[in-house]
Amino acid sequence: METLNTKIVSKVFLKIYSKLKVSAFLSYFVNFKFENLKSTVMLPIHEYQEQFLIYLESQNIAKEPKNLYQPIDYILQLGGKRIRPVLTLMTADIFDADYKLALPAAMAVEVFHNFSLVHDDIMDDAPLRRGKVTVHEKWNINTGILSGDAMLILAYQYFENYQPETFRKLAKLFSKTALEVCEGQQYDVDFETRNDVTIPEYLKMVEYKTAVLVAAAMKMGAIVARSSKENRGLIYDFGLNLGLAFQLQDDYLDAFGNPETFGKQVGGDIIENKKTYLYLKALEFSKPAEKEQLLQLFSVKLDDNTDKIAAVKEIFNATGASKATQKAIEEYTLKAFETLEKMNISQEKKEVLKAFGENLMERKV
Amino acid sequence: METLNTKIVSKVFLKIYSKLKVSAFLSYFVNFKFENLKSTVMLPIHEYQEQFLIYLESQNIAKEPKNLYQPIDYILQLGGKRIRPVLTLMTADIFDADYKLALPAAMAVEVFHNFSLVHDDIMDDAPLRRGKVTVHEKWNINTGILSGDAMLILAYQYFENYQPETFRKLAKLFSKTALEVCEGQQYDVDFETRNDVTIPEYLKMVEYKTAVLVAAAMKMGAIVARSSKENRGLIYDFGLNLGLAFQLQDDYLDAFGNPETFGKQVGGDIIENKKTYLYLKALEFSKPAEKEQLLQLFSVKLDDNTDKIAAVKEIFNATGASKATQKAIEEYTLKAFETLEKMNISQEKKEVLKAFGENLMERKV
Repeated sequence: METLNTKIVSKVFLKIYSKLKVSAFLSYFVNFKFENLKSTVMLPIHEYQEQFLIYLESQNIAKEPKNLYQPIDYILQLGGKRIRPVLTLMTADIFDADYKLALPAAMAVEVFHNFSLVHDDIMDDAPLRRGKVTVHEKWNINTGILSGDAMLILAYQYFENYQPETFRKLAKLFSKTALEVCEGQQYDVDFETRNDVTIPEYLKMVEYKTAVLVAAAMKMGAIVARSSKENRGLIYDFGLNLGLAFQLQDDYLDAFGNPETFGKQVGGDIIENKKTYLYLKALEFSKPAEKEQLLQLFSVKLDDNTDKIAAVKEIFNATGASKATQKAIEEYTLKAFETLEKMNISQEKKEVLKAFGENLMERKV
Repeated sequence: METLNTKIVSKVFLKIYSKLKVSAFLSYFVNFKFENLKSTVMLPIHEYQEQFLIYLESQNIAKEPKNLYQPIDYILQLGGKRIRPVLTLMTADIFDADYKLALPAAMAVEVFHNFSLVHDDIMDDAPLRRGKVTVHEKWNINTGILSGDAMLILAYQYFENYQPETFRKLAKLFSKTALEVCEGQQYDVDFETRNDVTIPEYLKMVEYKTAVLVAAAMKMGAIVARSSKENRGLIYDFGLNLGLAFQLQDDYLDAFGNPETFGKQVGGDIIENKKTYLYLKALEFSKPAEKEQLLQLFSVKLDDNTDKIAAVKEIFNATGASKATQKAIEEYTLKAFETLEKMNISQEKKEVLKAFGENLMERKV
């Protein structure tokens, strides 16, 4: 019975993770159902989510001056699956704490994530976010900048719910992570105009822009649970490597995913000439003629992209870039598993985390 | 001899304070000399300043990615008199600590102040800052936003130099202050398009936008010095009330200061139709005809402002707004003095702080 439950848990984890679009500043989450989760060791995920939403609702955010706080309330109410705060609550639970103690830390993570969306949407001149008008479109750019600034400060304030030792640990991890997210965003911007981006550089960008916040969200749960330093490091590594595997999977599925279930336009990265892992590997492995063709294809923006997408995917396959990407996803997932072996938690909880990762590797979407 | 020294100290304080243009986001400091200060109880101010600059230089700020960190290095190297960090160091000294212990906290205050300049210059579309090109002009708006964000995070990181109890106190004060500065900026923006701004609203805006950072800079020095809770509260109130007196003095001098020594264009607020304390008091005290004339004068922007400035100043004097403003400056300064009486520090140090305030009241510039 426990095995069955674990399998169900792992399937739901797959659902969550496979739909998680962690492109950091650009991330969003498509719909999926939390209701199926059953487990003897953990709460159903939708309960973490519901408790988080109750906590969010209980915060009196839309204070005076209204023009500063209403945009903050607006973006926080826009929806999203609240995956990062849920990970914080879950991890507190995994390390045997009352997950409710982790609510303020979870809130800090969510407020920071939304801060990054507000400022990023200005930088990208994006008109829509989660199907609704962006903050700077609804108000104006100055409001977007100032309300975003206030959100970054508000995120830190949530740590004031903790005692000095815990406060310092949380705020220190938060600052390190937040700065890395800024650095990741800057690398991503820099890469747009560079033609010599290396694989290690790309991986560092993905790590900073995307994976560190997933890792930190989990580690914060472990900090609140007063878990050992070793466990805190291990859960961070687990989140980081799965986050990396995950973003590479996202790169892969952007080209090769099932258009009916992927949730985004398949081929979107190819249309945008985005230098993903697939593209960089294809450049690395290609013969001169293929390389020239690929560079040519990525130097133009077209109205009809059908032929371009087909041609690029053909090169991704022919050069072995597709296989190399799948291999990298597997390697990062296995790396995450290695950390699990060393973790001082019950076997059943390890199984939950492992199923989570195994299913990630099998993700087809 | 001590009395003489105290007088010299107070004169130098006057010089510093009288030149301090605390308009928060818009603040800048004109040149003045630190070299004259002699005191038996305190270091010469230029030494605090020099030590701060040595500490600033020792920080390896221009890291990778360069496009994120070079703008930060640029704005921090632009100059300015470093008054806020100097106040932090001085206050640590007043409360009998080695002022060098306060260097990281002083740095946090200065980095935050410069963060606010970078984002504010974007919002104001300002081409110049301290006579040099602004960050968003030298690079671009996106760089200004992202580098500014990183600075806000960097400011928090400087508190990591302190133990948990001190860290929590400093970060908590910092968050509260930073949020108030954002709120003050929002109120200032809101007031531009409102015609019903009250005096209490204006004072709250000035307090948040300007005075709280001066107050917090001083309180941080007291926190690092592990001064009593009471002393921490008193030095904060001292800074806050002097900050308020100071901004009202700035409003006053903007209209009535000596053009040769004021450092800014006299009448600048009148040209910009800025709703200062002088203006709001004039509206309050004016008879219908004067009120109509003032509203009319403040509804236009002209090329030649000579007549407008003269007419507005005439109304400021005739209505009694000028006298009311001078009275308010005196009241806030006296309020600051009341806190001094209660402070548990040596008489000599009280004299230093008092001379500081007395000279402020006499400021003519």
